Amino acid sequence: MTARHSRRGGGRAGRRESRASAVIERDPFLTRALAPVELVSEEGLALLEGNAETILEEVGVEIRDYPSALDRFAAAGAQVDGTRVRFPRGMCREIVGRAPAVYTQHARNPANSVQIGGTATVFAPNYGSPFVHDLDSGRRYATLADFENFVKLAYLHPYLHHSGGTVCEPVDVPVSKRHLDMVYAHLRWSDKGLMGSVTAGERAADSVELVRIAFGGDLADEAGNQRTVLTSLINASSPLVWDATMLASAEVYAAANQATIITPFILAGAMAPSTSAGVVAQTLAEALAGITFVQLVRPGAPVVLGSFASSMSMQTGAPTFGTPEPALVLYTMAALARRLGVPFRSGGSLTSSKLPDAQAAYESAATLLPTVMAGTNFVLHGAGWLEGGLAIGYEKFVLDADQLGMMATFAQGLDLSENGQALDAIRENTPGQHYLGTAHTLANFETAFYRSEAADNSSYEQWVEDGSLDAAQRANRVWKQRLADYEPPAIDDAIDAELCEYVARRKTELPDTFA
Amino acid sequence: MTARHSRRGGGRAGRRESRASAVIERDPFLTRALAPVELVSEEGLALLEGNAETILEEVGVEIRDYPSALDRFAAAGAQVDGTRVRFPRGMCREIVGRAPAVYTQHARNPANSVQIGGTATVFAPNYGSPFVHDLDSGRRYATLADFENFVKLAYLHPYLHHSGGTVCEPVDVPVSKRHLDMVYAHLRWSDKGLMGSVTAGERAADSVELVRIAFGGDLADEAGNQRTVLTSLINASSPLVWDATMLASAEVYAAANQATIITPFILAGAMAPSTSAGVVAQTLAEALAGITFVQLVRPGAPVVLGSFASSMSMQTGAPTFGTPEPALVLYTMAALARRLGVPFRSGGSLTSSKLPDAQAAYESAATLLPTVMAGTNFVLHGAGWLEGGLAIGYEKFVLDADQLGMMATFAQGLDLSENGQALDAIRENTPGQHYLGTAHTLANFETAFYRSEAADNSSYEQWVEDGSLDAAQRANRVWKQRLADYEPPAIDDAIDAELCEYVARRKTELPDTFA
Repeated sequence: MTARHSRRGGGRAGRRESRASAVIERDPFLTRALAPVELVSEEGLALLEGNAETILEEVGVEIRDYPSALDRFAAAGAQVDGTRVRFPRGMCREIVGRAPAVYTQHARNPANSVQIGGTATVFAPNYGSPFVHDLDSGRRYATLADFENFVKLAYLHPYLHHSGGTVCEPVDVPVSKRHLDMVYAHLRWSDKGLMGSVTAGERAADSVELVRIAFGGDLADEAGNQRTVLTSLINASSPLVWDATMLASAEVYAAANQATIITPFILAGAMAPSTSAGVVAQTLAEALAGITFVQLVRPGAPVVLGSFASSMSMQTGAPTFGTPEPALVLYTMAALARRLGVPFRSGGSLTSSKLPDAQAAYESAATLLPTVMAGTNFVLHGAGWLEGGLAIGYEKFVLDADQLGMMATFAQGLDLSENGQALDAIRENTPGQHYLGTAHTLANFETAFYRSEAADNSSYEQWVEDGSLDAAQRANRVWKQRLADYEPPAIDDAIDAELCEYVARRKTELPDTFA
Repeated sequence: MTARHSRRGGGRAGRRESRASAVIERDPFLTRALAPVELVSEEGLALLEGNAETILEEVGVEIRDYPSALDRFAAAGAQVDGTRVRFPRGMCREIVGRAPAVYTQHARNPANSVQIGGTATVFAPNYGSPFVHDLDSGRRYATLADFENFVKLAYLHPYLHHSGGTVCEPVDVPVSKRHLDMVYAHLRWSDKGLMGSVTAGERAADSVELVRIAFGGDLADEAGNQRTVLTSLINASSPLVWDATMLASAEVYAAANQATIITPFILAGAMAPSTSAGVVAQTLAEALAGITFVQLVRPGAPVVLGSFASSMSMQTGAPTFGTPEPALVLYTMAALARRLGVPFRSGGSLTSSKLPDAQAAYESAATLLPTVMAGTNFVLHGAGWLEGGLAIGYEKFVLDADQLGMMATFAQGLDLSENGQALDAIRENTPGQHYLGTAHTLANFETAFYRSEAADNSSYEQWVEDGSLDAAQRANRVWKQRLADYEPPAIDDAIDAELCEYVARRKTELPDTFA
């Protein structure tokens, strides 16, 4: 289940293979052989589910500036009081039962279509950062050129299964228009799955139109069902508020049978209580309300239960990452999503560090390992995140993506095949003799261990001779080489022309706004 | 279960408390509320146990230069052929059954005595490095002054439960004498548990004599039983060899009812097959033979099953760390130790990086998290390890130790108490209102989240104002401040004089050798 590198062929195709071998013959998503780790007992999980029902029943959720949602909830049996919606116990859970446990997100290149849910884990890059960081220029505002670079880097990496969405904010493009450039960049410079815009209902509609064009004008499959080709991020305004922007976007996507990730975004202590079990109950309540809305728009629309929970510095109010408490929340929310029967999104490579340093790595690993062990299905922020999400780092992206590859190997579990057991090799070896030249070692040495693209394992002396570079400095070379070697995936010229035409037309129709 | 900081008192004691509050009122070891994660099925584990028995029966182990061990094995029913010992199936497992599942290692300060086995996890520092690294001087040979510094840093840290052994090699002291200085340093500059010398039987005997003096001349408790006050590291010469140095040391310790960690030290692909299940079977076979030896010396002597397994670069032969394969071995060996009924040692904060950079942190975290999740009982190399163990880093020590604290919090699991659930806080809060000023938050804010001593969570602007330091640069300040603030634990003057006298006498008796 590691990336398999093809033999080199001749000519242009051969050169492309040898230069960008990462995109060839790979698993489109990670299939975990390991069962998810359960940290909380059945009784504990049932208690937390009961608390979420209590919150939905007694406190309810506030619906801001979106009266049609109030009408939908009321019609389905909720108690609506002004903009407050309270739900009878069990109502949301029953309606959420209409959502599929697993769905396929189709990619422009069918080889890159991913399963979302079940034993599948899909790694997607960073999302939402207004800044970028690299060792050469430091921290600066992100541009569309940066955005395209990260789309290309994700396209080239075998363990990034998805192109993501707002990998960074192209702040050189008006807010009102940048969704067009972003969706186009994903469709043109990658052929992996993508996310649509959620900053306004009409931008969600533009996203759907663009992917429809990219898929040949029709998302319907042979049986006439709308294929799901977008999985987009819908955040709650915690605590217990859903706003018009997010609801409008979710509505557009659900109506088109496109997937949404319904995510309470919680800085514990600020947007929820400071204790983890409280964060969990509130997260579940918010998610249940949001997913219920989606299922009322279109029963059976694909939906993911998302959880983003960070701890905070109680001295300064700053969010903190890689701490133990969010990991506990993550394991618990993953278990609750499984009980609910919907795919689960959380985790990533999170950190509050401003640099790709030791802090960044410890914190990212302390988020990513629980993410995988918990059986998370969709992992946003898999690579690149810095500074609490305010920045995406080029070097951080390379370093994180390498860790994603390690997770893919780890999740295969222990190989207990005869070759894995190696009993004959041990039988035939003499005590005290090394195994380097044995037939078993020679037969396995190419695939025996995950090969890191970021680590330096050489001797101290060799490392000094190579320039005494730290991990970030080596990663700096890697991303530059990757971008230099990048070649875009094929696209039908007519489709590309139609995409460009749509983008150009909408840009003339839309005003320039930067908020 | 986090370190509790006492209120300040007046006078000298008060100053000491405020300066070195880390050593006050702490849990002497980590008690895991979380069940160990099981990655391999019962059938899989039984298969691997069968393979270990096959190795012991068919290949056996080689005993080098230690005829009395051959006699012991033969007398117990093993088949001895020259220096090769083969064991009938089940023989070792039966004899190992005499070892305790849990034991107490008594510390000079009873408040620092630790439980080894069961739900306890004990973190000990780095072991065995000939080099030290810090940001100011780079990499250089370690000295006794460095050794003493690390003993002090471990003493001061609430989540290092143990003083360790050869935290670094004091290469400025002759090999023949350095064990005396090392054991004395642990006993004088710390009052936590320690490890004895294993580089010769007589050095092990010196270690036992020194701790006997430190404990008032007698290790017997009130019932007349010899208390265990040392847990020392006995490594196999893998594959399948036990040598005279290690066996002699193990024999001295077992005879005095002192604990040993019987550890196959495996670079997979070189000292064992390159496949993880093969590494596991061989590790178990070697450990069974070693533990059997200890139990034949003294039935019931405390003993730990150790596993140190790294992957390797199949291009260069260099050991690699933080990769997925050793983590799989770790989880599997932990489960096998539980089935065997003995405490388990593995893991730590391992890396092949030469610097406390992102590589070091990713690799250390990818070892430490599995270590804790697997339910490891004794964690050597918990803090400081760099460069495949060739160096211990001052900054790395600070950064790793911070992660140990996070593990201690994580291992407590989700708090499902009424306060943890925070249901009333959610009930009383209005949707959309933050929780920062609520009674529940105010009641919990001091203990709500693990407070990292190494992370910078401030804003980018604040971080720039603070000097734009990376994690290693901040850690550089931390260890210097700690050492500046250090005050030694109390010791009886007469005992200290007797220890010094013993060390001085032995130094005159022993030759100066550097090999």
